[in-house]
Amino acid sequence: MDDSTLQSIRYHRGSLQLLDQRKLPLNTIYLEIRDAVEAWEAIREMVVRGAPAIAIAAALSLAVETCKLLEGFTGTSKDAASFLINKLEFLVSSRPTAVNLADAASKLTEIVTNSAATATHANQVFQAYIDAAETMLEDDVASNKAIGSHGSSFIQNLNNKVSVLTHCNTGSLATAGYGTALGVIRALHADGVLDRAYCTETRPFNQGSRLTAYELVHEKIPATLIADSAAAALMKTGRVHAVIVGADRVAANGDTANKIGTYSLALSAKHHGVLFFVAAPLTSVDLSLASGDEIVIEERPAKELLNTHGGLGEQVAASGILVWNPAFDVTPANLISGIITEKGVITKTGNEFDIKGFINKIRSNN
Amino acid sequence: MDDSTLQSIRYHRGSLQLLDQRKLPLNTIYLEIRDAVEAWEAIREMVVRGAPAIAIAAALSLAVETCKLLEGFTGTSKDAASFLINKLEFLVSSRPTAVNLADAASKLTEIVTNSAATATHANQVFQAYIDAAETMLEDDVASNKAIGSHGSSFIQNLNNKVSVLTHCNTGSLATAGYGTALGVIRALHADGVLDRAYCTETRPFNQGSRLTAYELVHEKIPATLIADSAAAALMKTGRVHAVIVGADRVAANGDTANKIGTYSLALSAKHHGVLFFVAAPLTSVDLSLASGDEIVIEERPAKELLNTHGGLGEQVAASGILVWNPAFDVTPANLISGIITEKGVITKTGNEFDIKGFINKIRSNN
Repeated sequence: MDDSTLQSIRYHRGSLQLLDQRKLPLNTIYLEIRDAVEAWEAIREMVVRGAPAIAIAAALSLAVETCKLLEGFTGTSKDAASFLINKLEFLVSSRPTAVNLADAASKLTEIVTNSAATATHANQVFQAYIDAAETMLEDDVASNKAIGSHGSSFIQNLNNKVSVLTHCNTGSLATAGYGTALGVIRALHADGVLDRAYCTETRPFNQGSRLTAYELVHEKIPATLIADSAAAALMKTGRVHAVIVGADRVAANGDTANKIGTYSLALSAKHHGVLFFVAAPLTSVDLSLASGDEIVIEERPAKELLNTHGGLGEQVAASGILVWNPAFDVTPANLISGIITEKGVITKTGNEFDIKGFINKIRSNN
Repeated sequence: MDDSTLQSIRYHRGSLQLLDQRKLPLNTIYLEIRDAVEAWEAIREMVVRGAPAIAIAAALSLAVETCKLLEGFTGTSKDAASFLINKLEFLVSSRPTAVNLADAASKLTEIVTNSAATATHANQVFQAYIDAAETMLEDDVASNKAIGSHGSSFIQNLNNKVSVLTHCNTGSLATAGYGTALGVIRALHADGVLDRAYCTETRPFNQGSRLTAYELVHEKIPATLIADSAAAALMKTGRVHAVIVGADRVAANGDTANKIGTYSLALSAKHHGVLFFVAAPLTSVDLSLASGDEIVIEERPAKELLNTHGGLGEQVAASGILVWNPAFDVTPANLISGIITEKGVITKTGNEFDIKGFINKIRSNN
């Protein structure tokens, strides 16, 4: 990661610092994380957020703790593996519904188990764990950069100079670095083809006005903040060429679950002939879901709409009003122009995405 | 007005009180307004908001002041007229862009001028003014009730039991009483056909979560608050049968300027086959505007998005981010199912609204 990019995760072997996202945008404070317990607390208390960032932060916290055990651990390789696997289970309990965190823990558990099966010394298991966690960090950043690069190239071919609209936060703060949808915007800017990025407030938690705006200002990308409800009026002015959003989950047919409000942006984009892209790593695709109808919509607490600061601040809304606060919505594939992945942009064949075919083709090429 | 209806304006001859809307929803405080100067300050400082409410409050403040002059004013009827006309000009300067206020002042000036032409005593002019201002209050409430009644009847004919979505605040707080779009919702509820009212937050000034939610709770109307960006997802669930919004201005072809976000709701409604109604008195129609393209979009200060409480509270957004904050947007007539007025519901003939024809027909019937 180059120095100019905002880092939510600062890591070198034996040291991990997390940018305290609760304090953004007013204060930029890094917290030292020395072990899994401190990471568990940091995740629980929302110091770090964004599914990929949580997974990497958890994995690296245990790598830091493990580093200290390389000298003086008296157990066997099996003891080392048990220690690591217990800690991974504990870390997953910090945000039980975060899929990326559970996935990462499961992959790391497998690596540790395999290592312990052949290792003659505990340190071999520890070393295997540290290497795997560090690879996870590198892979996430590399994957994001590939998403950015593929997305930027694809969009450049459509237009000389573009302005894009994004929603929520999908940048350095939500990932190990660079970002998915915001990574594409970074790449467009780096390639000199970005005219302006627009970001929504992203009610009710304001990830757009607090975090995406912070990243865009930090990166000196020409950017403008709008209310979520102003997106249709903005598109009508002709000032936006493409909408680029991230994804919580992509079904086999391309239907995409993402932050509440994404569906509304897609409807407006369709009406105004504005391109609509989803940017996400292939790990976000869940081929077991035939369509978005199978995705359960999580509902969040009423207080996020009733009080300022995502429910933590002063009361704004009238007492006694009921609230419906879905965390995300599903954008049907027919409103999506393309899905930007680390392996290239998936476009439609006829009227449909063949995501399974795309993945199989990549596998057969490797 | 019956006692159960929330009153933003409490008036009887010689006394005016305004509900301080800046303190809502947390505190219900009425301020005594004794003259035009106190009304000017109350309007300027947003104690009262909503174009019809501002106009009525201004007119009545001068009626209260005039009441005191009925005994002891030593000037001629011409002096009385000059006094009133100067005060009306002064009141208009409190919110120079508020069309209803300027309209009301212009009508009252005409009445005062005509009265002075024939009056033999100053008190005759004063009395003519007081009567006209009081008639304005009664007419606004009657007009709103007629809008509610026409809207409710029309919608009942389409569906047995309905749930509706509204935007911004168009209720008792924005008008002299009862409300326009919210008046239709009140009438649907009174008629026993309303299942549930949904209201948006209405970013960035939160008129929905602060004021509409407050009115709905006060009136014990089953109601649910949603983020503006959740409207499309809500419509997709099939739980909303109609969207009903107010209007800042309606062009001759039916294109309607209203609070930012209205256009987005109309696009979502069209996509989901949900009816979309504009509720407004015929005074909101401006036949001099051929279409919505001629309506200038006012842009509001950035701080409304950067800080809580419409710009008055703590900082939320990242420092240094630019903001685009249009106050309203234009919904094209082709997305509108009907325009609910105090004289009935204007529907389309073929694909177009004939608003001019509707108005001419009413005039010829009177």
